[in-house]
Amino acid sequence: MKLSEIAAALDARVEGDETIMIRRAVHPSEAEGPEDLALAMDKDLLALLPGSKAVAVVVAEGAELPPELTGIIRGRIVVKRPRYAMAGLLDVFEKPVHAEPGIHPQAYVAPDAVVAEDASVAPFAYIGPRARIGAGAVVLPHVTVGADAVIGEGSLLHPGARIGERVVLGARCIIHPNAAVGNDGFSFVTPEPGSVESAKTTGRVVGTNVLLRRVNSIGTVILGDDVEIGAGATIDRGTVTATRIGNGTKIDNLVQIGHNVQIGTNCMLCGHVGVAGSTVIGDRVVLAGKVGVADHVKIGSDAVVAANSGVGTDIPAKSVYMGYPAVPRARAFEQYKGLARLKRLFADVVDLKARLHAVDGQGKAPAKPVVAEQD
Amino acid sequence: MKLSEIAAALDARVEGDETIMIRRAVHPSEAEGPEDLALAMDKDLLALLPGSKAVAVVVAEGAELPPELTGIIRGRIVVKRPRYAMAGLLDVFEKPVHAEPGIHPQAYVAPDAVVAEDASVAPFAYIGPRARIGAGAVVLPHVTVGADAVIGEGSLLHPGARIGERVVLGARCIIHPNAAVGNDGFSFVTPEPGSVESAKTTGRVVGTNVLLRRVNSIGTVILGDDVEIGAGATIDRGTVTATRIGNGTKIDNLVQIGHNVQIGTNCMLCGHVGVAGSTVIGDRVVLAGKVGVADHVKIGSDAVVAANSGVGTDIPAKSVYMGYPAVPRARAFEQYKGLARLKRLFADVVDLKARLHAVDGQGKAPAKPVVAEQD
Amino acid sequence: MKLSEIAAALDARVEGDETIMIRRAVHPSEAEGPEDLALAMDKDLLALLPGSKAVAVVVAEGAELPPELTGIIRGRIVVKRPRYAMAGLLDVFEKPVHAEPGIHPQAYVAPDAVVAEDASVAPFAYIGPRARIGAGAVVLPHVTVGADAVIGEGSLLHPGARIGERVVLGARCIIHPNAAVGNDGFSFVTPEPGSVESAKTTGRVVGTNVLLRRVNSIGTVILGDDVEIGAGATIDRGTVTATRIGNGTKIDNLVQIGHNVQIGTNCMLCGHVGVAGSTVIGDRVVLAGKVGVADHVKIGSDAVVAANSGVGTDIPAKSVYMGYPAVPRARAFEQYKGLARLKRLFADVVDLKARLHAVDGQGKAPAKPVVAEQD
Repeated sequence: MKLSEIAAALDARVEGDETIMIRRAVHPSEAEGPEDLALAMDKDLLALLPGSKAVAVVVAEGAELPPELTGIIRGRIVVKRPRYAMAGLLDVFEKPVHAEPGIHPQAYVAPDAVVAEDASVAPFAYIGPRARIGAGAVVLPHVTVGADAVIGEGSLLHPGARIGERVVLGARCIIHPNAAVGNDGFSFVTPEPGSVESAKTTGRVVGTNVLLRRVNSIGTVILGDDVEIGAGATIDRGTVTATRIGNGTKIDNLVQIGHNVQIGTNCMLCGHVGVAGSTVIGDRVVLAGKVGVADHVKIGSDAVVAANSGVGTDIPAKSVYMGYPAVPRARAFEQYKGLARLKRLFADVVDLKARLHAVDGQGKAPAKPVVAEQD
Repeated sequence: MKLSEIAAALDARVEGDETIMIRRAVHPSEAEGPEDLALAMDKDLLALLPGSKAVAVVVAEGAELPPELTGIIRGRIVVKRPRYAMAGLLDVFEKPVHAEPGIHPQAYVAPDAVVAEDASVAPFAYIGPRARIGAGAVVLPHVTVGADAVIGEGSLLHPGARIGERVVLGARCIIHPNAAVGNDGFSFVTPEPGSVESAKTTGRVVGTNVLLRRVNSIGTVILGDDVEIGAGATIDRGTVTATRIGNGTKIDNLVQIGHNVQIGTNCMLCGHVGVAGSTVIGDRVVLAGKVGVADHVKIGSDAVVAANSGVGTDIPAKSVYMGYPAVPRARAFEQYKGLARLKRLFADVVDLKARLHAVDGQGKAPAKPVVAEQD
Repeated sequence: MKLSEIAAALDARVEGDETIMIRRAVHPSEAEGPEDLALAMDKDLLALLPGSKAVAVVVAEGAELPPELTGIIRGRIVVKRPRYAMAGLLDVFEKPVHAEPGIHPQAYVAPDAVVAEDASVAPFAYIGPRARIGAGAVVLPHVTVGADAVIGEGSLLHPGARIGERVVLGARCIIHPNAAVGNDGFSFVTPEPGSVESAKTTGRVVGTNVLLRRVNSIGTVILGDDVEIGAGATIDRGTVTATRIGNGTKIDNLVQIGHNVQIGTNCMLCGHVGVAGSTVIGDRVVLAGKVGVADHVKIGSDAVVAANSGVGTDIPAKSVYMGYPAVPRARAFEQYKGLARLKRLFADVVDLKARLHAVDGQGKAPAKPVVAEQD
């Protein structure tokens, strides 16, 4: 591909020789010659160019090439928003996963399952009774598609993905390795009110959970279009109706979504996020890594929750929350600042007591002579 | 099924026409006609009924149907403890997973494994040497049962479950998709005391971990009867003896149980809980989502630990703990309250300093005139 | 094996009869006779010996056998560093996983894949196009090895391990059940600056993530020699170059490693640790259970981070950090101490206000008569 063609795909401009033929996009340290396009869209990467064999590069608008590279870098693509340009570049140089057309003879497809003609079903994939695999969908090795599940067109199921019975995936979903969609909810009930019920209301354990009776899940999971579920993530089915994840929402590795949860469109839930049962999350919400969200809470659209936070209450739209328990970001920062200055505050109060004792003779006399601290 | 029959199964009473024939249990918004029994056992669900096509409903004792439904709702089941009734309802309307009797020709069963006649072994299931699969057990696609493992009668192994060698499951266990039971413990030792040992004792890093020698696990995992292990959860085997999980204990998705851990009966460990090696957990303990428990601690029976807490010390029986580090709940609330009021406390102390300066002339003069705050 | 031979393997000495023939190493409570070597290298285990049928034992240097065991325990191995001796003992008594030599007929091996002659490939293992399996490597059931992946000699892939395309494993790596190495990075970009960018810089949500554009991952994962990846752990591939994990590093269950992360040698990352994209971790670093590390930070060699901590900034070499946000350990302890004494501090300030009011007449009069507290 010519440098000019790549630039056109990115809606960017070329400086220098736009006819250079490119074969790969690489990290500057891995450039081996003129066919390698070195990606140097930030300062750190730019600084690696002098030691690189790069001849063609991608740089950010306004970036200055080190002067010693004059004459060595023969062509460069100049982009405006580097992170966005990166997405475009990696579309151009994508390395799609290996998949052969048709149903492999070592796959299992139930006699009454329906697999679109141009779909790909790999060795050791299992397609259950009455399941439907849409046009262009790719089912990689060791994937399980349960009975009556529906896989939308163009979806990609990575090795070890588990799609439970009756689960519905929209178009172009990507389910990463070993993700499990459609597990039974974690729902048990005690004949009499148990320890958790009393702990929540009274703060003490009154009843005991002598028996845990299972609440079966007869609902399902419905994913919209363009949803991604990360490696090892787990999405539980609804108790009676469906757990739903809206169009364009991206869920990272090892995330846990409880039964009956409703998630809107274009959300991002990062690694190890956990959302307990029946919680409702709006559109475009971002939950950073390891955020935990309690059951039955509501998170408004466009809210952002910082990493490691524990959300126990509703969160308004467009707000930024953090901490455990999560509070508005400004308040959390105030608390951290307070914590960091706490030692000094204790010293101040000791000093005030001593000085006040000198004035009113009350309280305990100071252990050492009073020297007012100067702050 | 007649409405009266369903009510009988729940030990509940019917009001109205008890002869209505029911085919499905549904969310009120999904009721399509007289054959759909709408579950409306809380206020939110009740409020959905006027917009629903429901004719038969389940409601909680004391619930008032909206007046406009008179004549439309023809029969209702009235239940006392809604969550418990839900369990009964979902037993009646359970949708059991698809499983065919016998060993599928595309399964692998070692010649010396023993599979009960009425057990089900799906395509691509692997049963290792000398493993034993009990009566009525269901082994779904892509399950691995290692050599010498024992699966108790009526147990259900979901797709991708990994049962390690020599692991023993009691009766009626459910292992959810991609759970792994019987992994090697995470146990390594340095020739000389390493960084962790010095960090724990001195707070500083003295030794360095120049080499990590593996401590092999020759123990196993033993699960009691009616144990559930959630999707993607990982249970490590004991070093020399067994990691044990008692009868009726339920473990949620993505939980990690370390080597040698001993867990009692009827416990509930929620999503993302992590329990480090050799910790001992009593009976009926509840660990809410994301709780972390250090190694070698003891948690007494009936204790409840709130979500996101980090437990580093023993916890007494029947106590409620929370926070990081976890402390009794009342103390944790006190700390959160204190944190929230910290900003005000700092202001108070600044004010006290200024006023005391006016009295004793010591310390620094206030930056602005003293105005006593009124609280 | 003779007791003396075992002692020789541990570089330890025998007291008593060194000719006892040993068949198993067991927990004291599980000793059944003279062929069982009871491991009693700490006080708790030692205390179990009187109720045990043990005849041969391993004890720590300086341990006193209970006097009633004289004449019953006929031989004992005495070790200096028990945890290290344990590693040696479990090497002697290791129970290696079942694996048959050669490629099982129910495996799938792509025609152009290369499997070393003495490697083992189990039923339902999948070896993709051009993949290479090194000498002595063991590929257990349900493992996926993607196209062009390289498995180093002597590596062991447990059931359900997913090795993505182009991923490279060094020698003697162990990939535990259902671990997934080489998943796509979690990387999306909005056409215009989105909510996270504004939340980080201004603390408020300005832009909204109307569209999340995928940033494809064309990089890979490279593991050094002797690396272990725990059950259910997920390691994402680099965006352009490789995510790297150095020789001897051990990663526990359910750990998540983001794209482009660089980890040095001999590190230990415990259960549920999460490391976000592009972070750089030195050598011999220890991250305890549930630690979260933000993206693009640097953790120096030999640093130790305590369980449940959230790391948002660089951490110097050889330091011990803890808390959320993580700070040096001494400072964290100071903060916890402060938090625990906060209630008292509030009371002190109330008291000071009341006493100062008595002196200067300012502020609010105390609600009750001033009684100076005696501390």
